[in-house]
Amino acid sequence: MILIVLSSLIAILETEAAIRDSAPQFFMGAQILIALLFTLEYGVRVYAAGEDPRFRGLSGRVRYMFTWWALVDLLAIVPFYVTGGAQNAFLIRLLRFLRLVRLLRLGALSSAWVFLADAVHARRFELALSAAAAGFLLIFSSACLYLFEARHQPEAFGSIPRALWWSVATLTTVGYGDVTPITPLGKLFASVTALAGIGLIAMPTGILAAAFSDALRRQADCTRETETPNTAGD
Amino acid sequence: MILIVLSSLIAILETEAAIRDSAPQFFMGAQILIALLFTLEYGVRVYAAGEDPRFRGLSGRVRYMFTWWALVDLLAIVPFYVTGGAQNAFLIRLLRFLRLVRLLRLGALSSAWVFLADAVHARRFELALSAAAAGFLLIFSSACLYLFEARHQPEAFGSIPRALWWSVATLTTVGYGDVTPITPLGKLFASVTALAGIGLIAMPTGILAAAFSDALRRQADCTRETETPNTAGD
Amino acid sequence: MILIVLSSLIAILETEAAIRDSAPQFFMGAQILIALLFTLEYGVRVYAAGEDPRFRGLSGRVRYMFTWWALVDLLAIVPFYVTGGAQNAFLIRLLRFLRLVRLLRLGALSSAWVFLADAVHARRFELALSAAAAGFLLIFSSACLYLFEARHQPEAFGSIPRALWWSVATLTTVGYGDVTPITPLGKLFASVTALAGIGLIAMPTGILAAAFSDALRRQADCTRETETPNTAGD
Amino acid sequence: MILIVLSSLIAILETEAAIRDSAPQFFMGAQILIALLFTLEYGVRVYAAGEDPRFRGLSGRVRYMFTWWALVDLLAIVPFYVTGGAQNAFLIRLLRFLRLVRLLRLGALSSAWVFLADAVHARRFELALSAAAAGFLLIFSSACLYLFEARHQPEAFGSIPRALWWSVATLTTVGYGDVTPITPLGKLFASVTALAGIGLIAMPTGILAAAFSDALRRQADCTRETETPNTAGD
Repeated sequence: MILIVLSSLIAILETEAAIRDSAPQFFMGAQILIALLFTLEYGVRVYAAGEDPRFRGLSGRVRYMFTWWALVDLLAIVPFYVTGGAQNAFLIRLLRFLRLVRLLRLGALSSAWVFLADAVHARRFELALSAAAAGFLLIFSSACLYLFEARHQPEAFGSIPRALWWSVATLTTVGYGDVTPITPLGKLFASVTALAGIGLIAMPTGILAAAFSDALRRQADCTRETETPNTAGD
Repeated sequence: MILIVLSSLIAILETEAAIRDSAPQFFMGAQILIALLFTLEYGVRVYAAGEDPRFRGLSGRVRYMFTWWALVDLLAIVPFYVTGGAQNAFLIRLLRFLRLVRLLRLGALSSAWVFLADAVHARRFELALSAAAAGFLLIFSSACLYLFEARHQPEAFGSIPRALWWSVATLTTVGYGDVTPITPLGKLFASVTALAGIGLIAMPTGILAAAFSDALRRQADCTRETETPNTAGD
Repeated sequence: MILIVLSSLIAILETEAAIRDSAPQFFMGAQILIALLFTLEYGVRVYAAGEDPRFRGLSGRVRYMFTWWALVDLLAIVPFYVTGGAQNAFLIRLLRFLRLVRLLRLGALSSAWVFLADAVHARRFELALSAAAAGFLLIFSSACLYLFEARHQPEAFGSIPRALWWSVATLTTVGYGDVTPITPLGKLFASVTALAGIGLIAMPTGILAAAFSDALRRQADCTRETETPNTAGD
Repeated sequence: MILIVLSSLIAILETEAAIRDSAPQFFMGAQILIALLFTLEYGVRVYAAGEDPRFRGLSGRVRYMFTWWALVDLLAIVPFYVTGGAQNAFLIRLLRFLRLVRLLRLGALSSAWVFLADAVHARRFELALSAAAAGFLLIFSSACLYLFEARHQPEAFGSIPRALWWSVATLTTVGYGDVTPITPLGKLFASVTALAGIGLIAMPTGILAAAFSDALRRQADCTRETETPNTAGD
């Protein structure tokens, strides 16, 4: 009933095909095979959905076809038949990757998933706050650089959205170097921005570290509490 | 009485206008509308301040006009009428963003704000120390590079403040690449600086992580302590 | 019996030779000496293996020669005699570095090694998940950039593997700047990628911090538990 | 007796002079004044050392002059009189910054200093291990890039020390971009190196976070333990 393992294997194969798409002649055949396999798998999946009490009967199967995952599956197949395997449908086929997410929930990774999701969820307001601070810094620093550099580098800092490109590269400490301030005041503010970028990275890292640490401690406390009565009973 | 939600919405709209200011003809109208709305809101706010017992009566309202937030509001409006909406007043209007900070204190984010501020405040001396270490590293590494590179790249390393620009870009691991050492000794010291930059990032991150972790544990301890008597009473 | 300290010293010397290999005439002699010393050491090691009850006798020594570490030792010597000290064997000789790993397990670093390995092992599923998320982000962002930039920069973004080079540089916040997006949509997605790169760094850092923190707490709890009975006995 | 506050203020002033050393005529006077002030302060300090029982008498003062800090003070003054205030003595005068370290130990920062130093010292073996791993990665990745790129970019990757410059810039995620691999295999290994660079940053950050967290918990436990008897006594 569950073809996930097979389909994910094919999905991985398919992206490997995408990785080597500089020689498209060879991969045309593989693409047709993959499309056929996915169509077959989709058919089997719709048929097998009838086994599930929620989707029993013909109308149940139709209802299944409108669940989120089934639509993703359909979306990944249809473009091939419509466009004949053109490259533009490429991103949609990447949606199949989302099914790997489902796969990650299986097996030993499941508890890790729950653990991480819970920890992040518990501190979501703190993370939202540091995201808001990051957004404020982004807009403020690009506004400053726009004021100081627009005259000297109209191409790179001629408007705030253009300055935002520099701002993102600096605050995330990526620092491409395709756009850099050249006026002394611009450099001064850029330095302040770069130093603030450390805070931008340190803040969510610290919050996540504390969240994971807290989740682990609560786990340990639960274990200890269930153990304590036994010890007391001895 | 509280127009914050409305004003912040307008503030967001206004920065979106700023984001698309490459076509200023269209945004002139929006700017006038926003200025009128903010003036109206400022009037309502001053009038409504009379409801607050601290600012009752005419003299109370005048006193309200000299509170920090009221001055920020005034500063954001006045430039428009003085300059007729020129671009130079742009940064001052960005001050309105500060009002979003007030908004962040409302609702569910309020406790997150208090939590983060408390944790950072508790470890402010440790953070100040690592900031001092960062400042020392910045000056020391730019002095080294100035000594080794000034002869070969007078444009980039001809003085210590010029070398500081490189120093900030390296220690924060931004690394624009517009200025790089070319002598072997300069590269050696630059490598040491880059490696020290890891410490510069790791130190505040570790301190913040520990601070958040500690704040969470104290929270948990408080909950447990208030729960313990109940358990003991059973 | 254990020549590790000596061999590691020679290994360090040897890489210093490698470091200064721009003047190969001088280092030829050192290379021959090192090769002879390592051959001698290998002979002594094989002979001394007989002292170990597992490798007693001639057949035991032959068995020892096929253990993993003995093969590494052999691999590091053979190329010199086959190629006469050519540069191509250089990487294989770097395998000797692996023996330093063994050395790190000795002395005071041993418990640190066990501590770090245990902590990482305990959270291996969480780390695997964030590695999977990183891989997904890498492929997704390079696919996006491929779609938006392939037309304008066929050299840099002409295929997904080419875009992956940019993608790795951005997500790890290295940001060489040799390849940067030039279209507005490409820059937008690049900004999102750069911001996601912060999460990519914050996630494993947070997990590791929590793992080390948890390992330290368990250590402290063990100490306290073994101390508690003594206190109760008083 | 303690002139530290005054001397550190002068030291800060002096580096500000160094910051503006592009106009040396004006700063010549300031330099002479500072040198005289420091000479005076050194004399007062040596005289005042006699108040300390360890350095009583003339021979005690001579002994004081050979303590580490007094030598640093002397080193910072002598070059001015020998070279007549030349720029080469500049780095030695920066040694005065070290005296700021002493100042940082005073006041409220003192406990923060002890706290951070203790936490780092407790995990020194783990930090040494991750430094060793970083060193191994540095040498290994530069060796790989040397093998793949030496033929195509002899200027940048012609020897291992040259490749090390690239290696440091990549592993620390600085990424100047002045030197980048151009061969596919070189890019593949560079990507692996960049991804390993995340681990290189995450490891010490995690260790430091756990160390600070642990130090805070031990502090809290001490407080609780000293409080517990009081509670039990009630």
